[in-house]
Amino acid sequence: MEALDYHAEERRKAEFDLEEMKIVWAGSRQNYEISDRMARLVASDPVFRKDNRTMLSRKDLFKDTLRKAAHAWKRIIELRLSEEEAHMLRSYVDQPAFTDLHWGMFIPAIKGQGTEEQHEKWLPMAYKMQIIGCYAQTELGHGSNVQGLETTATFDSQTDEFVIHSPTLTSSKWWPGGLGKVSTHAVVYARLITGVQDHGVHGFIVQLRSLDDHSPLPGITVGDIGMKFGSGAYNSMDNGLLRFDHVRIPRNQMLMRVSQVTREGKFVQSDVPRQLVYGTMVYVRQTIVSDASCALARAVCIATRYSAVRRQFGSQNGGPETQVIDYKTQQSRLFPLLASAYAFRFVGEWLKWLYADVTQRLQANDFSTLPEAHACTAGLKSMTTSVTADAIEECRKLCGGHGYLSNSGLPELFAVYIPTCTYEGDNVVLLLQVARFLMKTVSQLGSGKKPVGTTAYMGRAEHLMQCRCEVERAEDWLKPSVILEAFEARAFRMSIACAKNLSKFSNPEDGFSELSPDLLEAAIAHCQLIVVSKYIEKLQQDIPGKGVKRQLEILCNVYALHLLHKHLGDFVTTSCITPKQGALANEQLRLLYSQVRPNAITLVDAFNYTDHYLGSVLGCYNGNVYQRLYEEAWKDPLNDTVVPDGYLEYVRPILKQHIRTARL
Amino acid sequence: MEALDYHAEERRKAEFDLEEMKIVWAGSRQNYEISDRMARLVASDPVFRKDNRTMLSRKDLFKDTLRKAAHAWKRIIELRLSEEEAHMLRSYVDQPAFTDLHWGMFIPAIKGQGTEEQHEKWLPMAYKMQIIGCYAQTELGHGSNVQGLETTATFDSQTDEFVIHSPTLTSSKWWPGGLGKVSTHAVVYARLITGVQDHGVHGFIVQLRSLDDHSPLPGITVGDIGMKFGSGAYNSMDNGLLRFDHVRIPRNQMLMRVSQVTREGKFVQSDVPRQLVYGTMVYVRQTIVSDASCALARAVCIATRYSAVRRQFGSQNGGPETQVIDYKTQQSRLFPLLASAYAFRFVGEWLKWLYADVTQRLQANDFSTLPEAHACTAGLKSMTTSVTADAIEECRKLCGGHGYLSNSGLPELFAVYIPTCTYEGDNVVLLLQVARFLMKTVSQLGSGKKPVGTTAYMGRAEHLMQCRCEVERAEDWLKPSVILEAFEARAFRMSIACAKNLSKFSNPEDGFSELSPDLLEAAIAHCQLIVVSKYIEKLQQDIPGKGVKRQLEILCNVYALHLLHKHLGDFVTTSCITPKQGALANEQLRLLYSQVRPNAITLVDAFNYTDHYLGSVLGCYNGNVYQRLYEEAWKDPLNDTVVPDGYLEYVRPILKQHIRTARL
Repeated sequence: MEALDYHAEERRKAEFDLEEMKIVWAGSRQNYEISDRMARLVASDPVFRKDNRTMLSRKDLFKDTLRKAAHAWKRIIELRLSEEEAHMLRSYVDQPAFTDLHWGMFIPAIKGQGTEEQHEKWLPMAYKMQIIGCYAQTELGHGSNVQGLETTATFDSQTDEFVIHSPTLTSSKWWPGGLGKVSTHAVVYARLITGVQDHGVHGFIVQLRSLDDHSPLPGITVGDIGMKFGSGAYNSMDNGLLRFDHVRIPRNQMLMRVSQVTREGKFVQSDVPRQLVYGTMVYVRQTIVSDASCALARAVCIATRYSAVRRQFGSQNGGPETQVIDYKTQQSRLFPLLASAYAFRFVGEWLKWLYADVTQRLQANDFSTLPEAHACTAGLKSMTTSVTADAIEECRKLCGGHGYLSNSGLPELFAVYIPTCTYEGDNVVLLLQVARFLMKTVSQLGSGKKPVGTTAYMGRAEHLMQCRCEVERAEDWLKPSVILEAFEARAFRMSIACAKNLSKFSNPEDGFSELSPDLLEAAIAHCQLIVVSKYIEKLQQDIPGKGVKRQLEILCNVYALHLLHKHLGDFVTTSCITPKQGALANEQLRLLYSQVRPNAITLVDAFNYTDHYLGSVLGCYNGNVYQRLYEEAWKDPLNDTVVPDGYLEYVRPILKQHIRTARL
Repeated sequence: MEALDYHAEERRKAEFDLEEMKIVWAGSRQNYEISDRMARLVASDPVFRKDNRTMLSRKDLFKDTLRKAAHAWKRIIELRLSEEEAHMLRSYVDQPAFTDLHWGMFIPAIKGQGTEEQHEKWLPMAYKMQIIGCYAQTELGHGSNVQGLETTATFDSQTDEFVIHSPTLTSSKWWPGGLGKVSTHAVVYARLITGVQDHGVHGFIVQLRSLDDHSPLPGITVGDIGMKFGSGAYNSMDNGLLRFDHVRIPRNQMLMRVSQVTREGKFVQSDVPRQLVYGTMVYVRQTIVSDASCALARAVCIATRYSAVRRQFGSQNGGPETQVIDYKTQQSRLFPLLASAYAFRFVGEWLKWLYADVTQRLQANDFSTLPEAHACTAGLKSMTTSVTADAIEECRKLCGGHGYLSNSGLPELFAVYIPTCTYEGDNVVLLLQVARFLMKTVSQLGSGKKPVGTTAYMGRAEHLMQCRCEVERAEDWLKPSVILEAFEARAFRMSIACAKNLSKFSNPEDGFSELSPDLLEAAIAHCQLIVVSKYIEKLQQDIPGKGVKRQLEILCNVYALHLLHKHLGDFVTTSCITPKQGALANEQLRLLYSQVRPNAITLVDAFNYTDHYLGSVLGCYNGNVYQRLYEEAWKDPLNDTVVPDGYLEYVRPILKQHIRTARL
C-alpha cells in the first residue's frame, strides 16, 4: 500500500533536484546531515512531544520545559554530542528554556568579558551545568539605553567586595530569561562605583540561589515577571525580575578583561580594544539573521502546503474547486515570502563569513572594517526580523480561518518569534544606527576615504546619481545587473537626499532627530540592497543539481521585483526608474509567479522540516489536513465531557427562568 | 491629597475641550452617556474582573465566561436595560461568549429570513433566552464559498420533514461560536434538496441539545474545535464542530421568508426581493467598521499613554531622559494610527447613516443604490479591519519590550481582534468584490449611467484624468480640496489603468484573475478615498467646543498625508502628484506631528475608556506603570512558590551530577 500523500502530484511537478536543494538550503552536505539527524532524534522522542503545549497552564508548561531541558541534556551527554549538535538539538526541541540563556548568553559573556583566570574558574562549572546562569542586563526602566542602567556595584575596599544594589524600583532587573525560577548565577550589569566615581556599566558574576536548596541568597528578591504573548510560546521561559539589597560579591567576580578594579579600588582599563564588544554583537546578530530565515521558512512551508490542499470557488462542471495556491492574489502574497526565506538564508550564510573575516582582522589588530560590519549586521538583524515577524502573521492570514487555530502552528510561531524584533537591539534603534553610519559615509565621500564592504557602491557616487535604468521590456528586469543598479541607485539617492536635508539644520542632532523617519527609509533601502546583492553573488557560485540554480534565479528575481513594486515610490521619485518601467517590473513579477507555482511545494520540502518541528496540522507533510483537524479537535479539554463544567450553575438557570420584567 | 496622576502635566497641555471631544467620539451626548454608564457598571462589578484571564486553563476560562454571561444577563434583567444598553454592557464585559452569537447572529437570522409565524414562534423564546442559538454556516471545507457548502437538507414528503445530513468529513460544521458547548439551537445552512433537485443553500432552525439535560439530540455529534490564537482572547468562546446523521426536523423549521417548500415538496420563491440579504450585510459590516475604530482606539490609547511614561536616552545634565513620544520615529508610527482611529470612527458613523438610507429605500422598493452601498461597506469592512489588526501589533511594538507582557493588554487585544479580518467575508475576497464593482462602474461610464454614492467622483472622468495637483508649498497640502482631488485622481486613474489592462485579455475572467493583485490595490485606493472624503465631510459640520474642530482637522490631514506618503508610488506613477509635491507632503506631515504632540494624551482620553476595559497596565489612566508592572508580576502562578515545581526532579539532578563523558 502506498503511503498517503495528498501532495504527491504537486511533488511530481517539481523541475529541480530536491536533494541538492536541501543541501543548498542547509549550506553544506555536512550541515544538512547533522541537522537532519538532530531533527529526527527530537521528532522520534516522546518526551519532546509538543502538540498539547498550548493547552497547558503556566505551571504545567513550565514543568514540561524543565523536563524537556533535563532530557535534552541527558541525551546530549549520552550521545556525546558536539557543541554544534547540542545547539541544534535544543533548537529542534523548539521550546524556549533557561538553557538558551545559559549557553547563548551566560557562557559567551564570561568568555568574552572574563579574564583567563575567570575562564578557568567559571567555564568548567558552566559547561558541566554545575551552575546555571543567565544574563541580567535589562531593567524595568531601561532596555535600549544600556548606559542608563541604574543597578549599582560599589566597591568596598575594606572588605575587597562589590556591593550590588537596586536603588530604585525601575532599577529592578526585568526580562532576563532563565532568571525567574532556575538560574543559580547571573552576569549582572551594573554601574561600577569606586569612591565617588561612576565608571559606567560593567558585568559582574553574582550567585543568586543556593546550590543546596535553590532558595534565593540573602538580599536577593527574584521571581517571574508573568505571562507573555500567546499560549505556549515564550511562557515556557522564566523571564525574571531581580532586586538586590546590598548584596556582596568578591572583587574577582567583576568581569575584568577590559577594565579592572585593583585591591586598592583603583579603576584601570586594560589595553584590550573596546571594539571587541562589536565583534560579539556581529556574532549574535548573525545568528539572529540565520534564525530569521528558519522561522520564515517554517511559516512559508505551512502556508504553501495548506494553500495546495485548500480549495475554494472555481469548480467547473462539478469538478473540484480551485486550489487557493493557484490564485494570483495568494501567489502575490506567498511567493515573495518564499523568496525572502531563501534570500535571508543566503545573506545569513554570508554574514557567517563576515563574522569570520572580522574575527581574523581583529586578531591582526585591523579594525578598519569593523564599523561597516557592525552597521551592516545591525541593519540586517533589524530588517530580516521585522520582515519575518510580519510574514508569519501574513502566512497565518494566507491560511484563512483555520490559520487561527493553535494547531495550525502559526499563532505560537508568531508569539514566540516577535520578541526577536526587540531583543539584542530594538529594530528601530538599530536602523537609526545604520542611518547614522550611512550619513557618515556620505559625508566622507569627498574626503578620499573609500567606503568599504556593503557601502562600497557609494564610491561610485557620480555614476549612481546619473545612471538611468535601461529596461524597455518586462524581461529586461531579469538581468541581475539591471536589478542591482536600480537598487544601488535608489539606496544611494535616498541617502544623498537625507544628507542634503540634514545639511539645512544648523544643529545636526536636531536634524537627525527631525528627519529620523526618512532616515529609517534610507536605512531600509540600504539593507534591502545588501540582501539583493548577496543573493546575486550567491548565484554566481557554482550550484550543482538539475534545475536548482534556475529555481534560485527565479526566486531572486521575485525577491527583488516584489521589493521594487512595494517601494515603487522610492524608485520613481528618485528617478531611478520610470513609472513605465515600474509597470514592466510588475508584469514580469506575474510571469515569475507562474514559474514558481509548479515548484512551490518542493521548494518548501527543501527546508527539510519534520512534522514535529513544524508543529502544524495545516502544514503536515502528507497534506491530510481535514482528517487531522477533526481528530485534534477532540483532544481539547473542553471536550472531556459532553456537558461543560458550569452548565448547571450558569446555563441551565438561564434556560429555565421565567422572565416577566425584561424590557427586551 | 491629590490623586496620583503621572499624566497630569500632559493633560494640562491639551488645546481643546475634552468633554466636547468625548461627545464627538461617541457620536452624540446620548451615546456618550449610555456608553459611560455601561462602562462604569461593568468596571465596578467584581464578577467582571478580567486581569487574571490569560492565566486560566481553557476549562477555567470557559467556566469563567459562562459565569460572566449569566451575571450579565442577570444585570440586564434586573436593571431592565434596553437592547442597545444590553449590547453595550456585553461589549464592555469584553470576553467573547456564546451570547454574542445568540444576539448578533441567531436572532437576526430568524428575524431576517423567517416568516411572521416563525418570528412569533421563535423570537419570544430567544429573547428570553429560553433557547440559546448559534449560526452554523461555515464548514470544515468551505468558508468564503458559501454556495459550496455540503450539508444537505432533504425534504421527505412522507413525514413532512427535512433530513439534515453531513455527507462528508469536510461538510462538518466548523467554527460557529457558541456551538461547541452551549447552544441548544442553531440556524443551520444546508443545501435544500427536493426530489432530485438541489436548490442551493438555505437556513434551517435545528435543535441540537436537550433542554432538560443539555445532551446532544440523537444523530448529532457536537464539540469544541480546540484552542485558538493567544491566551485568554477567543478561547473563552466555544467555537464548535457539528455533524448530522440524518437528523429530522419539521418542515416549518426551514426559514421561509424568501423561499418555501410546500407540503407537497414543491420549491417556491416568494416575491420578497433577494436584495434584502444585502441590506443585512450592510448592517453587519457597518457594525464591524464601528468596532474597528473601538479596537484601534484602544490600542492607540495604550501605546500613547505608555509612550508618555516611557523615557529612554537623551538625558541632559543628569535630567530625565526623553519621553519616547517625543521621538519623531515614534510619532510617525503612532500619530497616523491615532488619526486612523478618528477617521474610522467617522466613516463608521456615516455607514450607520448609509444603512438607514438603504433600509428606507428598500422599503420603497428602490434598489438603485444597493450595489454601491454593498460594495462600499464590503470595502470599508475589509480595509478598516486589516488596518486595525496590523495597527494593534504596531502599537504593541511601540510599547517596546513591555508590550510583549500579557498585562500590557495588547497581545490579547490582537489575538481577539484578528478573526475580524476573516469572518463576515474574508478581507481579500471582499476587496475583489469592490474591484469588480469598480470595473463595472468604469465600463458603464460611457453609457450615460451615472455612478452613484461613493463612486460619484468617477462621473468626473475627464477632469480626474487631466487634473494636476497645484501644491507648491508644504502648507498647500492642508487644503481639503487639494487632498480630496489627489485621492480622487489616484483612485480613478488606478481603476482606469486596471480596466485598460483587463481589456487586453480576450477572456475577461482570465484577465480579472491574472490582474487581481493590481485590482486589490485599486480597491484599496478607492476605500481610502471614501474614508478621507467622509472625514472631510464631517469637518464641514458644525462642531462645538473650544479647539475641537481644529484638532480634528489636524488629524484629518495626518490621516490623508500619511496615506499619501505610504502609497507615494501610486500617486506619482499615475502623475497625480510630482515627486517634489510628495516631499512637500512629507514635510507638512512632520509639522502636523508637532501639532498633535501636546494633545496626544487628551485625544486618547476622549475615547473615555475605563481602566477595566483597556485591561492594560501600560495604558492605565494615571500612568503609574512601573509600580503596577511590579505588583502584577507577583500574581503569576509560577511565583506561588519560591522554588518551582519540577526543581527536585529536573533541575537539581543536573546541578549535582558528575559528568565524565561529555565532549562539551
